[in-house]
Amino acid sequence: MRPFADRLAAAIRAKRSAACVGLDPDPALIPRVLFRGTGRSEPARTLGAIARFNAVVLDIAASRVPCVKPQVAFYERWGPAGLAVFAATLSRARELGLLAIADVKRGDVPGTAKAYAAAYFAGDGLGFPCDAVTLSPYLGSDSVEPWLEAAAKAGGGMFFLVRTSNPGARELQDLRCGRSRFYLETARLVRSWSERLRGRCGYSGVGAVVGATYPAEARLLRKRLPHSFFLLPGLGSQGGKASDLAPVFDERGLGALVSASRSAIFPWHSSPYRERFGAPRWERAIEAAIDDMNAAIEAVRRAR
Amino acid sequence: MRPFADRLAAAIRAKRSAACVGLDPDPALIPRVLFRGTGRSEPARTLGAIARFNAVVLDIAASRVPCVKPQVAFYERWGPAGLAVFAATLSRARELGLLAIADVKRGDVPGTAKAYAAAYFAGDGLGFPCDAVTLSPYLGSDSVEPWLEAAAKAGGGMFFLVRTSNPGARELQDLRCGRSRFYLETARLVRSWSERLRGRCGYSGVGAVVGATYPAEARLLRKRLPHSFFLLPGLGSQGGKASDLAPVFDERGLGALVSASRSAIFPWHSSPYRERFGAPRWERAIEAAIDDMNAAIEAVRRAR
Repeated sequence: MRPFADRLAAAIRAKRSAACVGLDPDPALIPRVLFRGTGRSEPARTLGAIARFNAVVLDIAASRVPCVKPQVAFYERWGPAGLAVFAATLSRARELGLLAIADVKRGDVPGTAKAYAAAYFAGDGLGFPCDAVTLSPYLGSDSVEPWLEAAAKAGGGMFFLVRTSNPGARELQDLRCGRSRFYLETARLVRSWSERLRGRCGYSGVGAVVGATYPAEARLLRKRLPHSFFLLPGLGSQGGKASDLAPVFDERGLGALVSASRSAIFPWHSSPYRERFGAPRWERAIEAAIDDMNAAIEAVRRAR
Repeated sequence: MRPFADRLAAAIRAKRSAACVGLDPDPALIPRVLFRGTGRSEPARTLGAIARFNAVVLDIAASRVPCVKPQVAFYERWGPAGLAVFAATLSRARELGLLAIADVKRGDVPGTAKAYAAAYFAGDGLGFPCDAVTLSPYLGSDSVEPWLEAAAKAGGGMFFLVRTSNPGARELQDLRCGRSRFYLETARLVRSWSERLRGRCGYSGVGAVVGATYPAEARLLRKRLPHSFFLLPGLGSQGGKASDLAPVFDERGLGALVSASRSAIFPWHSSPYRERFGAPRWERAIEAAIDDMNAAIEAVRRAR
């Protein structure tokens, strides 16, 4: 398989989109019509609804964006059967030509990291085959080495938590370390790892998770991580604005993926899509929300 | 359910042991005799062996130690069917009266953390019911709040990564932050969280993962985290010695769980158990290794 960075760059060009749709299926927000078979036991009924909902979203996303990012917590909640839906979602996304980022934020000591990396990148069809994962960098280089080795063989990618999108990110990630900040020291390590997995496009398969809710930090990190794609969650529901993110893209419009979850897949629950579509036309609402997200991001990429 | 800290303290007293057996089932180390049904497809054959092996280890552990800690990576490696074995292992451990710590090191933004916390502590039998989890603290207080709320209702516990057992831990966790170190700043946050979930025994359900391989750091952390049980992985294969850990126990012999995985469950692969038992008597080897671990830890607790 070609390096992840090159596959991502090609997909962004082909779809004319740097958006990523987050598949965080909260059952409370899924249309009631998808909960068929009222006699069946939980969690089968809920999981059936999640699977049907994801299938619709993936069909809508496939022609519009380069990649999707299922968040594993929303599947793990339902136990092993939920994780079967997670695996099927990753698999279906890839069949549709989407790059699938497993949002799992794994991070552990080397022996454990080796088992995790095999789960995502072994290429034997077992585990949870995908194109990239999100990872936690806090255990240091030896905890990352098994991932780099497995990803090199598989053409896989990884996005390390550097500066997260939530308010609590400030508490530890912004701590002063001498003249630096902790998240900048994290970026220093990520940069060293990004020398690996370099593609022909100039970027590495080693990317960074940077909250779209913190544009000033994102701009600073852009300079410190010149070879890393940024995965920018937090657009929409969490308050991030596409217009703030222009500096993270390069002159080719590459270098970042802007991710939205609730605002992209459940738009009919809030304005303006509630008024424009309402619950019965939820599929049209998703199409419109993703089109609008694309338009907002494309305006920013063109302005760059 | 009673608070986790009180349940753990009672179990440590009842079993006269502060040891935790890590269930990290590496198929390459599992006795060949457990791989029955050669005609069956992978991963069914491997998972059958893992399930049979865990059942034996749990029976041996149940009379000897207060708790076990399955590491999810070794199950996730095999996909949804592997996670069914993980869930069954947690469940069987609890049936046998063992406290089950799900070693999952989760950590994510608040909305995602809520879904994760429900997976482990919702009490509805879905997800992965257990007594405690390991967590990553790096996203800050808002990412932890859903866990504290769910654990308070469930009588659950959590152990936050503070100073991990691997060599790479130094790179970020030991960074100087003013007059402090990053892992000590992490401990400062964990201490604030440990005001919650306090049990009658004086400890909190909010504990800390501290590598048994770094006794000096463990001693320093003991002073900074007076109300937290320490989960000390890294004994045995990773190089940690029980005799270095005396200062982490209080005068009642409480305050810490010393965890060993490979050295406890696969002892016949290395000295002295290879010579004393050999592969055919692998069950006796596990009994002896856990008894020896208990004796080493008990000597330390009594010396305190």
